Amino acid sequence: MTPYAAPVRDFRFVLEELLEHGSLALPGFEEASPDLVEAVLEEAARLAGEVWAPLNASGDRQGCSRGQDGSVSLPDGFIEAYRAYAEGGWNGIGVSEALGGQGLPEVVASAVQEMLHGANMALGLCPMLTAGAIEALAHHGSDEQKATYLPKLVEGTWTGTMNLTEPQAGSDLSKVRTRAVPQEDGSYRLFGQKIYITWGEHEAAENILHLVLARTPDAPEGNKGISLFLVPKYLVNEPLVNHDGSLGERNDVTCASIEHKLGIHGSPTCTLSFGENDGAIGYRVGEEGRGLNHMFTMMNEARHKVGVQGIGVAERACQQAFAYALDRVQGRRGGSECTISDHLDVRRMLLSMRARTDALRALALYCAAQLDVARHAADAADRLAAQARVDVLIPVVKAFSTDQAVEIASLGVQVHGGMGYIEETGAAQLLRDARIAPIYEGTNGIQALDLAGRKLQRDGGAALTQLIDEVEGTARALSVTTELAPLGEALAGGAADLRAAMAAVLEAGADTERGADAVQAYATPFLSLAGHVLCAWQMGRAALAASAAQASGSKEPFYVAKRQSADYAIRQWLPVGRAQRAVIEAGMASLAAFDAAAH
Amino acid sequence: MTPYAAPVRDFRFVLEELLEHGSLALPGFEEASPDLVEAVLEEAARLAGEVWAPLNASGDRQGCSRGQDGSVSLPDGFIEAYRAYAEGGWNGIGVSEALGGQGLPEVVASAVQEMLHGANMALGLCPMLTAGAIEALAHHGSDEQKATYLPKLVEGTWTGTMNLTEPQAGSDLSKVRTRAVPQEDGSYRLFGQKIYITWGEHEAAENILHLVLARTPDAPEGNKGISLFLVPKYLVNEPLVNHDGSLGERNDVTCASIEHKLGIHGSPTCTLSFGENDGAIGYRVGEEGRGLNHMFTMMNEARHKVGVQGIGVAERACQQAFAYALDRVQGRRGGSECTISDHLDVRRMLLSMRARTDALRALALYCAAQLDVARHAADAADRLAAQARVDVLIPVVKAFSTDQAVEIASLGVQVHGGMGYIEETGAAQLLRDARIAPIYEGTNGIQALDLAGRKLQRDGGAALTQLIDEVEGTARALSVTTELAPLGEALAGGAADLRAAMAAVLEAGADTERGADAVQAYATPFLSLAGHVLCAWQMGRAALAASAAQASGSKEPFYVAKRQSADYAIRQWLPVGRAQRAVIEAGMASLAAFDAAAH
Repeated sequence: MTPYAAPVRDFRFVLEELLEHGSLALPGFEEASPDLVEAVLEEAARLAGEVWAPLNASGDRQGCSRGQDGSVSLPDGFIEAYRAYAEGGWNGIGVSEALGGQGLPEVVASAVQEMLHGANMALGLCPMLTAGAIEALAHHGSDEQKATYLPKLVEGTWTGTMNLTEPQAGSDLSKVRTRAVPQEDGSYRLFGQKIYITWGEHEAAENILHLVLARTPDAPEGNKGISLFLVPKYLVNEPLVNHDGSLGERNDVTCASIEHKLGIHGSPTCTLSFGENDGAIGYRVGEEGRGLNHMFTMMNEARHKVGVQGIGVAERACQQAFAYALDRVQGRRGGSECTISDHLDVRRMLLSMRARTDALRALALYCAAQLDVARHAADAADRLAAQARVDVLIPVVKAFSTDQAVEIASLGVQVHGGMGYIEETGAAQLLRDARIAPIYEGTNGIQALDLAGRKLQRDGGAALTQLIDEVEGTARALSVTTELAPLGEALAGGAADLRAAMAAVLEAGADTERGADAVQAYATPFLSLAGHVLCAWQMGRAALAASAAQASGSKEPFYVAKRQSADYAIRQWLPVGRAQRAVIEAGMASLAAFDAAAH
Repeated sequence: MTPYAAPVRDFRFVLEELLEHGSLALPGFEEASPDLVEAVLEEAARLAGEVWAPLNASGDRQGCSRGQDGSVSLPDGFIEAYRAYAEGGWNGIGVSEALGGQGLPEVVASAVQEMLHGANMALGLCPMLTAGAIEALAHHGSDEQKATYLPKLVEGTWTGTMNLTEPQAGSDLSKVRTRAVPQEDGSYRLFGQKIYITWGEHEAAENILHLVLARTPDAPEGNKGISLFLVPKYLVNEPLVNHDGSLGERNDVTCASIEHKLGIHGSPTCTLSFGENDGAIGYRVGEEGRGLNHMFTMMNEARHKVGVQGIGVAERACQQAFAYALDRVQGRRGGSECTISDHLDVRRMLLSMRARTDALRALALYCAAQLDVARHAADAADRLAAQARVDVLIPVVKAFSTDQAVEIASLGVQVHGGMGYIEETGAAQLLRDARIAPIYEGTNGIQALDLAGRKLQRDGGAALTQLIDEVEGTARALSVTTELAPLGEALAGGAADLRAAMAAVLEAGADTERGADAVQAYATPFLSLAGHVLCAWQMGRAALAASAAQASGSKEPFYVAKRQSADYAIRQWLPVGRAQRAVIEAGMASLAAFDAAAH
């Protein structure tokens, strides 16, 4: 099994040479000096590589198990590895200082997340869900709730979960049936069953705070009848008044079963039963009937995190494939024995994996930097403009990164040949693990609808148009240099395709009769085209930065490699995405007429 | 779990309406009347659906296990299901009557293979390997060997294996080290270890015949030192003279371990040790030093079978995704509750799966029909021309069908949403099973080299040019009808792209300095382009046939569905393939300069 070495050099390249938006110099980030950031990255790399990564394969093999009492056992070492993370203060690095965190920029926190997921995605899910709970409480919790629960969540001594899905309510949460019955003391009693609850039960933390969507009595049908509740595994003594943080009774919530999944075996995916006895005691978070809205507040960031998670797994797949290809002697080149990394068809796979991973990372970190600007820029107009970009970018980062991560992990299997199909090698695990990411936190189809429907239609494409303008600016900058001109030409072509496809999607959306259907039919090809063009844009910027470093005299092989990545991404990967324009322009007749029952 | 229903209607469509080459009317196939063929398909569908398919999930869960004595236990029911197959005479349907088979056309045998793999790919591997052994002995065995071993293999009472790979010899078989020491009686003693031996040990058959590549003493290094040997698990009494078929001693070959694989858990993948005691007794098959050539004789057909296997799994993934999408109620369309099959983004996935599977099947069966012509046509020139097409088509059928099968199975997981990630649903198993097909029987990279290197360069593209001419003919035929004209236009564009790419690959191959590298760099994009265009061609022909049937008054929904498949395949799937022309034309500079160690 290849060890995992976090790509710190590449994080530094993106942070220092690609992100010209100065997100590290925003108000509030005064302490995030380059030295501090580098130290954070190095230390996170150590935790990821030395503590988390070695447990990835064993965690997959052993998996989780549920005892007859409903307790859940994690794979060996997971509790210790989680505690090393929490005790190292990692859980709060991206949380604001006001909430007890370290208030580092999101772009730094995202880099750390990528490392942890690359090292051990199953374990990485635990803090990812906790981060969602922190967001939900920070935005919508009462002062008492914040005081009672946030410090422990930020520390990581308690963890959080998101309880949305029920058997009949998946992508359509309006169908949630879990009931929340108000009690005289202002609390609620919850009754119902939730499925697919990530890290829903475990012993790694002293307590687990379940955030639960449920329906109050006499609430209207559909979305507006749903509220958000906090249901602790162990009740906290005196939660609504002065509290001492001490834990009381076990609440009436139990793990009824855990799922047997394709991957992420080290992450317990639970069915949780609320209220099998007297009802699970819960506390409403935010307004009655606004549960879905409150949940979506944090979902945007969770979606970014899932994209980053995909990139982490893609990075590990790259590392493993490169190591294997550089080691495996097979065949001949130029008359002598060689490793398979010398065969051009294998190089094609390796470079394809590397170029895509680099590109996805650059785009995800660009998005994170825009998040920082949206939150921290001094100027309100800057904040709004950045938020508009974030809104457009997040579905792309989530869906495109995860779809690509599955392909990259699958290429990783292919590079290994027959060895890739043997579980001991570890390449197959990465494919199995990655495969969930296009599904959860809103399927990639939902992301595409979010982009092509809501995000694009509501501003008439204004935010995306600004991004396309920037892509064209990068294309022009590339065209100035003879060497980079072919990249500029290809990138400009991609930008033109995206602009044309956007116009088609906007036109379809404006059609009152068939609009919703047409946007749906075009959504996934459109997101794929946008992902390819925006990633190619980032690689165009990377080519410019690498070229500038070389012009300044750098002989670092990193820049040579980066330019090869950029060349491949723009000239041999982008064309595949550009084909999606033709897919969109071919129209939606076959989909509109399609009757699944007749096939 | 969705039951498997073999797509008999579609097989009949391809056989009766698409294959204009009259392969069923060739000399030697006089008895293969349409009625008989239909009865064969119906009966195979019953075996596949009722006997094999119900064991697919349980076989995956249970897997195989190896006892301390080296014996291997199959999943429950597999032995009975295999015997039902053998006793039904299915093992010999494609084998010539001279060898004791039924001599049905390859195109019919391929349809039956697809059904069996769709029902249970792990079990289907057993007869697939036996078919290889039959081919090897039929082509290269002595009369005695044929008389001794073929009847039992054709019956299926004995099964066969292919022993090629060793730890240091995978894609590069010149590195085989297993030794074969000649004995005074003309037999050999074999010593060595072979890995990844499919169905290498089991109790489903009375005997197992291992075909083994090994090196004779003093043989030259490399390929020319390798010969092919037959090593029975149980020695056959008096194998080289008059034999009574009775079994003698256990030979010195044992199963040292079985692999823990990503999928096909019901297929035992063994490490076999030859000669741990006195040496495993083996008999040379064919000429000394020609083992690799002899092995490649049968490999062409085995590659076709692997492609067909991919299509079988893709078909099952389609059926399961359609059934789920038609059943799962979620969300609303036009104001009322609907199943997810009504959402256009889900339709896109379903139609993409269906269109690709239809197209791959039509191409694979076209190739099988050409195999029949190559073997049976009365005219020698017809036979040669068909063989030239087969040579070009087989790497495409193998690699393109299996790459697409993985994507189709992955889309099947996606259609299921969260349920797709839970193993009980069965969608994930199809992805895990399918993932081996791009790897074994020559990786898909090797297939691409075979196409772009050997097959294309040796005839200067003549055979492929003839196929492209036919694609253009179909495009012209489509262009005659207003309704089908957009398909004709798109198909003509695809044909032009393939012609241009072929010219680029031929030009690269002719470059004596960088030829081999350039062809390698272009090989996989070129195969992908060829696969898309040839599949689209078949769907163009399907559109014409369906349109003709409708013009003759047919109201069968099958034809409506087929036309939707064709429309999607040509207008929304082909464009993605056409992008590979741009990939090729972007050149190979980044790959040639690529240094994996520097990334």
